[in-house]
Amino acid sequence: MKVGALGEDRVLDQIWLQLPRGKKRKIFAGAADDCAVVQIPRGNKHLVLKTDCVVEGVHFARGTSASDVGWKAMMRPLSDFAATSALPHFALITLIVPQKTDATWVKQLYRGLRRAASRFDVRTVGGETSNTPGPIAISVSVAGFVERNRAMSRSGGKPGDDLFVTGRLGGSLKQKHLKFIPRIAESRWLTKNFSVHAMMDISDGLGSDLPRLARASNVGFDIESERLPLSRGANINQAISEGEDYELLFAISPHDRTRLLREWRPEFPKLLLTRIGLLTRIAKIEKRKLPRGYIHFQQPG
Amino acid sequence: MKVGALGEDRVLDQIWLQLPRGKKRKIFAGAADDCAVVQIPRGNKHLVLKTDCVVEGVHFARGTSASDVGWKAMMRPLSDFAATSALPHFALITLIVPQKTDATWVKQLYRGLRRAASRFDVRTVGGETSNTPGPIAISVSVAGFVERNRAMSRSGGKPGDDLFVTGRLGGSLKQKHLKFIPRIAESRWLTKNFSVHAMMDISDGLGSDLPRLARASNVGFDIESERLPLSRGANINQAISEGEDYELLFAISPHDRTRLLREWRPEFPKLLLTRIGLLTRIAKIEKRKLPRGYIHFQQPG
Repeated sequence: MKVGALGEDRVLDQIWLQLPRGKKRKIFAGAADDCAVVQIPRGNKHLVLKTDCVVEGVHFARGTSASDVGWKAMMRPLSDFAATSALPHFALITLIVPQKTDATWVKQLYRGLRRAASRFDVRTVGGETSNTPGPIAISVSVAGFVERNRAMSRSGGKPGDDLFVTGRLGGSLKQKHLKFIPRIAESRWLTKNFSVHAMMDISDGLGSDLPRLARASNVGFDIESERLPLSRGANINQAISEGEDYELLFAISPHDRTRLLREWRPEFPKLLLTRIGLLTRIAKIEKRKLPRGYIHFQQPG
Repeated sequence: MKVGALGEDRVLDQIWLQLPRGKKRKIFAGAADDCAVVQIPRGNKHLVLKTDCVVEGVHFARGTSASDVGWKAMMRPLSDFAATSALPHFALITLIVPQKTDATWVKQLYRGLRRAASRFDVRTVGGETSNTPGPIAISVSVAGFVERNRAMSRSGGKPGDDLFVTGRLGGSLKQKHLKFIPRIAESRWLTKNFSVHAMMDISDGLGSDLPRLARASNVGFDIESERLPLSRGANINQAISEGEDYELLFAISPHDRTRLLREWRPEFPKLLLTRIGLLTRIAKIEKRKLPRGYIHFQQPG
């Protein structure tokens, strides 16, 4: 069987399920969550770790502005920090690049990485370069911290919770996916002022990502698709399936609805916040139908 | 100009020198050292970060046992933990692999990664997979901790220090480079019982790596090449230039020489420890001749 037939979730499941787990150290969210959130000796914060990569011909086309590629390579893992409501501090950059690559291209790539890191006060503390006979690949690993009581994960959603998304969905592949700004400020504001139950960033599209949040929270969902906030020129189908939105999706008690909407607007006047539906109870019979590889992650804290 | 004409050190210098540095957070060793060692809020330990990658056709040949590739991909960054005298805790794995790759190959790869991680009680807490039109690449990022007063770096060597290496050098490419065991236990023992001044692991060969330690320590060196501990079948030239030894190279006061050699043998009866020379003073005129890109790193602590 080929890797392509397995799908990314299955390949990740293999890492997650088979690699050894230390017994003494507490892990609150792992491979299938947006970031790894782990306990550190003493201190009142958790360590947060995330790695992500972009590959030429997969995540960006040959001829894409190198500066845009660098921006995206840094911002993808930072968007997972937004999902976790964590603050990123340190980045490690691995650059796999053919020796024939023009040094100017690499310089522009660093420019993009640097601008993106600087936007969130992230310091690049290490790097590795390798030659390759193949396409350019850039892998960025980020380490940071989150207060114990503010670490968000996909689990924790409850039946009856409102579902909200930031910004607009769909149409990202035209341009936004190379220019997006991770919703770290918004996520930090949310967990400072509200009790958010579950959160993630939308990278593969609402239609792929929402079921992951629901599975991790062991709940169902009900979306009012006519409410979806569409990007200009995008239709509902694109908003559900295209991905690369890098907006926040979160679940919160309906008791907080009025205050959330009232306080959000003056805080983030340029960014839409939309209630798109709610989480629901799932019957026991449905549970048994959940796809293989399903894992119930522990809630943080 | 092509990247190939610059060399890896120069490309790394570009990352290190140009990416923004946070002002509030203390960084003790960065991109050009073996690991990044950074201060964390509260706590009496530093956070240690390292990323490394292996690429098909560069670090391993097509047809190499997938399990061996996984072992090497995990052990390379762990060898940098040995250099830093840090304990690794968490790993993030990025797997860039064509969809046509056989799933059995990937399973064997994970087996190697798992065995290597398990050898040092490292827990894999996250991962990312990507398709690629090119060769297989595996990037492993590791996070761990080191006590503030035991964080080793390449700087800190003093004129007159003895230079020691563990094990034997040369001939690694035949087999050892796929099976090596990072010298974490040895390094931890050294920093627990002795005041080691500077340390690194030998990955590019003594001839490339020792000058890096000397530059970082702002000293010269004098090697008695007939003393070099040679692997079976290797000559002095190979011991100096081949690389992939993953042995420790460290500088320590000659006052510790007798006790070090006496206590080492019962502790590590199967592993050679050899004094290969000493660090020397360099004249001011020599300093000016140091290659471009030279940075004097601060000592930890």
